[in-house]
Amino acid sequence: MAAPHRFNPDFTQSVINAMGPNTPPRTREIMTALINHLHDFTREVELTVDEWMAGVHFINSIGQTTTPTRNEGHRISDVLGLESLVDEIAHKHVNEAGEEPTSSSILGPFWSPNAPFRENGASIIQSPHQGEVTLMHGTITDLDTKKPIAGAVIDIWQASSNGKYDFQDPDNQSPNNLRGKFRCNEEGKYWFYCLKPTAYSLPTDGAAGALFKALDRHPMRPAHIHLMMTAEGYKPVTTQIYPRDDPYVSNDTVFAVKDDLLIDFTPRNGDSKAKLDLEYNVILAPRAGKTAPMEAVAHL
Amino acid sequence: MAAPHRFNPDFTQSVINAMGPNTPPRTREIMTALINHLHDFTREVELTVDEWMAGVHFINSIGQTTTPTRNEGHRISDVLGLESLVDEIAHKHVNEAGEEPTSSSILGPFWSPNAPFRENGASIIQSPHQGEVTLMHGTITDLDTKKPIAGAVIDIWQASSNGKYDFQDPDNQSPNNLRGKFRCNEEGKYWFYCLKPTAYSLPTDGAAGALFKALDRHPMRPAHIHLMMTAEGYKPVTTQIYPRDDPYVSNDTVFAVKDDLLIDFTPRNGDSKAKLDLEYNVILAPRAGKTAPMEAVAHL
Repeated sequence: MAAPHRFNPDFTQSVINAMGPNTPPRTREIMTALINHLHDFTREVELTVDEWMAGVHFINSIGQTTTPTRNEGHRISDVLGLESLVDEIAHKHVNEAGEEPTSSSILGPFWSPNAPFRENGASIIQSPHQGEVTLMHGTITDLDTKKPIAGAVIDIWQASSNGKYDFQDPDNQSPNNLRGKFRCNEEGKYWFYCLKPTAYSLPTDGAAGALFKALDRHPMRPAHIHLMMTAEGYKPVTTQIYPRDDPYVSNDTVFAVKDDLLIDFTPRNGDSKAKLDLEYNVILAPRAGKTAPMEAVAHL
Repeated sequence: MAAPHRFNPDFTQSVINAMGPNTPPRTREIMTALINHLHDFTREVELTVDEWMAGVHFINSIGQTTTPTRNEGHRISDVLGLESLVDEIAHKHVNEAGEEPTSSSILGPFWSPNAPFRENGASIIQSPHQGEVTLMHGTITDLDTKKPIAGAVIDIWQASSNGKYDFQDPDNQSPNNLRGKFRCNEEGKYWFYCLKPTAYSLPTDGAAGALFKALDRHPMRPAHIHLMMTAEGYKPVTTQIYPRDDPYVSNDTVFAVKDDLLIDFTPRNGDSKAKLDLEYNVILAPRAGKTAPMEAVAHL
């Protein structure tokens, strides 16, 4: 509950009470909490008229920065840690043995529903780049049985060596460059060529840029590869993996790094297509699997 | 402080700690409170990924509804009660005798800095309408001395009888229709012709419309006249006045009505220009006047 304050004690409830009888119960729950917190925030800092108006202009600037290929609302939400928090709330899972599946991380604004299926052994690199080609491979297994999951799908997307995704960079990248879906074989194995990822700055020419400046924050994300793993009968996992030696893994500007998502690239010999090797194994939890009480895993 | 929760207890502080050393102290104070409240809200309702994404789309829609003549961020803020709250925080004033100046209310998104000065006795009605013409008149006096304030300025703006302001309605209204500034004479008196105001709906074709629908709320404001009073040496007052018999004074969708802002229109006889009369007197507080502690006036 909020601390007592010196303003009209009935005002916030009057705003909440304006919700009509046909408001769905979950909407009512969410909006009651949101209105309470927004008003408590406003009273606690005694927000001035000028500060409030600056906030209004900032909110307007978010949608004005947004385009069909740029979701600035999503980005601002990430910069304030909200997507990572929602991800934590949604995806904590521990089985009865106390084991956890591969950690999830945020989706980010660059996933595409249109990425093509490619054959194992194919390359997602479709356009020129200055990166280091890597053979990424691994096995997707069941958290409880430890057995491989034949037919599991791994969807990968990543920025090119200039830090941009295909639809941010149509002059240099063809559609679906550095995107692809791969289906694991009978041994639960996948393998494909991709790039060692490059650290990049979030775009700073819009609302997020203004926020970084106001908060004296850098706009850098650590280098990362986005992954989304799905399999019939398993809880899907959306995540990101990060080179362990990237200087931004300890201060990611969207707060999405977890220790078990750090990866190591090693030299690859005897492959004319790739200089580097990356083994990355994935563990998925069965949908029917019991989820331990959150309290037990709060610090994992 | 927030209730204990079952999620990573260090996460919110890590987002706050990302603010750099050059963040201005007031920005740090505001953003610390905002991040704490946003995260507490998210955890309290255990916001799902789909609900969070719906929020992101809603935030984007605010700026996408906004145009040079339409400030949807301001409107959403009003619909959530934030402008009224900021107004309360900014403008509570009581003198040593326990007396208060004219109450303030919200500015709203339709004030214009370009309203022309007009002579007392002139009309702000410049375009055709279907309203009732009113002679509005009164005296502006000093809260402490009770003396009239010569030269005080009253800036009035109002919607036409179709519920629209000039810049929402360029086909029917000339610029500065139903806007004007008037300077009080030596006796602190002003007088001009305006319309009896008409209740109207906020625009429902944008983000605010979606919010009204989600919350099962009506979009109506009670009929009102906007006023801004200024005088050298006095605290300015921005306010709105409402016909006492309007059905929406008890459920204004932007929560801006206060009891002392209710007004009564009376028949006006012997004036070929106006059917109605409205006397409205204003009290301004000297800038140097002491402001009583907020606690003393929380329920006024």
